[in-house]
Amino acid sequence: MRLVRFGDRGAERPGLVDEAGTIRDLSEHVTSLDGRELDPDRLAALAAIDPATLPKVAAGTRLCKPVDRIGKIVGVGPNFSDSARLAGFRVNPEPTLFLKSATAACGPTDPIELPKLATRVDWGVELAVVIGRVAKYAGVEDAQRAVAGYCLANDVTERNFQLQRGGQWTKGKSHDTFCPLGPYLVTPDELPDPDRIELWLEVNGERQQVGSLEEMIFKIPYLVSYISRFMRLEPGDVILTGTLAGVGLSYDPPRFLKPGDRVRLGGTRLGEQDNLCVSI
Amino acid sequence: MRLVRFGDRGAERPGLVDEAGTIRDLSEHVTSLDGRELDPDRLAALAAIDPATLPKVAAGTRLCKPVDRIGKIVGVGPNFSDSARLAGFRVNPEPTLFLKSATAACGPTDPIELPKLATRVDWGVELAVVIGRVAKYAGVEDAQRAVAGYCLANDVTERNFQLQRGGQWTKGKSHDTFCPLGPYLVTPDELPDPDRIELWLEVNGERQQVGSLEEMIFKIPYLVSYISRFMRLEPGDVILTGTLAGVGLSYDPPRFLKPGDRVRLGGTRLGEQDNLCVSI
Repeated sequence: MRLVRFGDRGAERPGLVDEAGTIRDLSEHVTSLDGRELDPDRLAALAAIDPATLPKVAAGTRLCKPVDRIGKIVGVGPNFSDSARLAGFRVNPEPTLFLKSATAACGPTDPIELPKLATRVDWGVELAVVIGRVAKYAGVEDAQRAVAGYCLANDVTERNFQLQRGGQWTKGKSHDTFCPLGPYLVTPDELPDPDRIELWLEVNGERQQVGSLEEMIFKIPYLVSYISRFMRLEPGDVILTGTLAGVGLSYDPPRFLKPGDRVRLGGTRLGEQDNLCVSI
Repeated sequence: MRLVRFGDRGAERPGLVDEAGTIRDLSEHVTSLDGRELDPDRLAALAAIDPATLPKVAAGTRLCKPVDRIGKIVGVGPNFSDSARLAGFRVNPEPTLFLKSATAACGPTDPIELPKLATRVDWGVELAVVIGRVAKYAGVEDAQRAVAGYCLANDVTERNFQLQRGGQWTKGKSHDTFCPLGPYLVTPDELPDPDRIELWLEVNGERQQVGSLEEMIFKIPYLVSYISRFMRLEPGDVILTGTLAGVGLSYDPPRFLKPGDRVRLGGTRLGEQDNLCVSI
């Protein structure tokens, strides 16, 4: 099942994508797609609904981030050897974790705000894992039970704020719109082997990142289990699993986003994002 | 006004402390103390209620964290010169920021869980600032408008997880119960000069930290303004403003918490916390 939230800001409704690619309105069956509704058993009940019985949503309706009321966004540092080496980050023997303010989340076609004084805003296409059940000290073998689904994410970062402004990455990761998510929340039955997912990202039509999650160092079940040793994961939490080679920082000279740039990205079964960069 | 949340887990209700120190039940006037209710104008309406008209709550009733549905907890790194020097942290020319999972928040008398494999769990009494209005690029002169009130916090940290496990502080800051808050949310009219607040902390009756917020390097209005340049602050967010000298890491040999230890802390007009350390 591919779930969405659609509609104008402040009036978003839940929906799903039928086999023909048409958005269908789920709001008679579920009021919102947030942590209270993301238990895999509840999602299975939604999957049992015949999409043909659901109202069609007009083509071109705005799609929003597919999860509402995100609790926390846990980021994973270097998780692809090429990406880490090219951008000058060390791969640790265990995952590097950081938190990104949940207020950074936005929709798949919302503008990306370039913060005041920002000069080095960078992109990073990633697979996001959306949590559907509480996980605390989850074993690797139990981790999949906690997963509601997957979506695309762009882990936008201001590199100066991240690396030159005093000690922790937080400042460079948390600006409003620094985490476009979606368009689809794809349930695991549609992506039984997430390692096979291919992701890509382009800026102004030029391909910057492309690759397969087969290259991921720390795999999804391990990441869920590992994170749950350090903090409780709750329904509505989001894990960003790390980006591919080809972030702007890794080019010589480095490439960063400027007002008017258009970032597009996509992935297998996950849909596409298309975000315009704007000054504020 | 000193606000509280009281009652058994899952059935917490809002209240206030009257002049005699008795808890009064506010649940006929407000359903919860969360971001939706923390606007200073709404709090002023609560302050206009005559406490004598409110039902008394039985003495000894459990007090909980004074804010529900916390959005994010923003931590400030070294903010007292003595504290930083003694614990071996560098004071940067601008504040160091980190995020602590909001799931770490707990009540002022809840047990502090010592995580599995933890060996260096440390304490840190701090003043927490609770946000009541959105702040984004707030000026220092406007920052106070965003403040709903203040409460006590213990920024509990596992030092190995923070410093020895790969790059960012997140892992050592986010375990369940690593952020006891309260008991009181004290509105700014009761603490017109937060710089004068004195804080103290003791472990098993032995004083470890004591000092005044006059020693704070980055003051509260500056911190609110500064953080709001990097991320949106929303009602229900909490800022931890940094701890005093005397954390366990700063002693030679260092001192850390073990099961059965009792942490008590308090501060001017802010009440007291009393937390027992337990294994999980």
